[in-house]
Amino acid sequence: MKRVVVLLSGGVDSTTTLAVAIARGYEVYALSFDYGQRHRIEIEGARRIARALGAKEHRIAKIDLTYVPARNTIFLSHALALAETIGSTDIFIGANAIDYSGYPDCRPAFIAAFETLANLGTKAGVKGAHFRIHAPLIKFSKAEIIHKALELDVDLSLTHSCYDPSPDGLACGNCDSCLFRLKGFREAGVEDPIRYANK
Amino acid sequence: MKRVVVLLSGGVDSTTTLAVAIARGYEVYALSFDYGQRHRIEIEGARRIARALGAKEHRIAKIDLTYVPARNTIFLSHALALAETIGSTDIFIGANAIDYSGYPDCRPAFIAAFETLANLGTKAGVKGAHFRIHAPLIKFSKAEIIHKALELDVDLSLTHSCYDPSPDGLACGNCDSCLFRLKGFREAGVEDPIRYANK
Repeated sequence: MKRVVVLLSGGVDSTTTLAVAIARGYEVYALSFDYGQRHRIEIEGARRIARALGAKEHRIAKIDLTYVPARNTIFLSHALALAETIGSTDIFIGANAIDYSGYPDCRPAFIAAFETLANLGTKAGVKGAHFRIHAPLIKFSKAEIIHKALELDVDLSLTHSCYDPSPDGLACGNCDSCLFRLKGFREAGVEDPIRYANK
Repeated sequence: MKRVVVLLSGGVDSTTTLAVAIARGYEVYALSFDYGQRHRIEIEGARRIARALGAKEHRIAKIDLTYVPARNTIFLSHALALAETIGSTDIFIGANAIDYSGYPDCRPAFIAAFETLANLGTKAGVKGAHFRIHAPLIKFSKAEIIHKALELDVDLSLTHSCYDPSPDGLACGNCDSCLFRLKGFREAGVEDPIRYANK
């Protein structure tokens, strides 16, 4: 079974990306980051998702990220190090160029540039292995991502998007991320299975 | 004064690179990593070097690095995030392709690929700023690096290279890194100013 690394935040996009990798028959090493900013809830959510979807392993890397620009560069770099460690040449990321068009590190050109870097900057790459950065949802709308998730039987009630959850972990329903998520579900014609504190 | 980020481990190469950036008149934000593997001694050494050479600030980023491949990719990613945060488009790294020819992420092609990535993956880059990754020592021999350091009045007694220092911080004189350093000083015709436990 071919090993792949999947970046997993526990939101809809990365969870669906994980499901895509599993559906393609890969042995998945999920990688999440604990950078202090987000709630424990999110890490716990990612853990449940990795287990529920059948990842082989789930690693949590702690990093200082008081600054947040260039985030995908940092996440992919750590994923690359993990990939080298486990003898994998494939990394999956839930980057999306449609909904996140304002983020340069979500565009296909960026993903391609990281792939080039991975092949130049690793022993495996230099020896002729070909690293691939897979971004299977990069051209999907949020509604298409939700449909893809449902097609793959992903339990979206496990996913978490809220920037400002209540102490007991309910999504606020008001932050940009909740509004964006709710809009996606509306456009997909599907009810969001998570509970909201205010909606 | 133009701001730059300098990756600083506290060894001879990164310290000399810091001196080069200072000599060029930049306002330097030094960045070191605490990844648990190396001794506190090294972080403390980097702190003293940043202060002695006149860095404007010195940041220590904690990261989990149980795996070490692709290290320069990770370090440069964090440096890129810091650069974006402080409005800088210039990163200095002490990468060296001569002595470290076995490390793909020390080669000019890798540095160039990271520069491309930085310009594609950041808002500043997309808006037309041009990120540059400076590796001023990339084609220097160890002896040339030592001569450059002395030319810039760097106090090399502050630098630390040993992988296995004694509890009181003395270099072992036997590990690969010590042997390599001593060879460099010998070839430069200069005495190494640090103390060794065994030599």
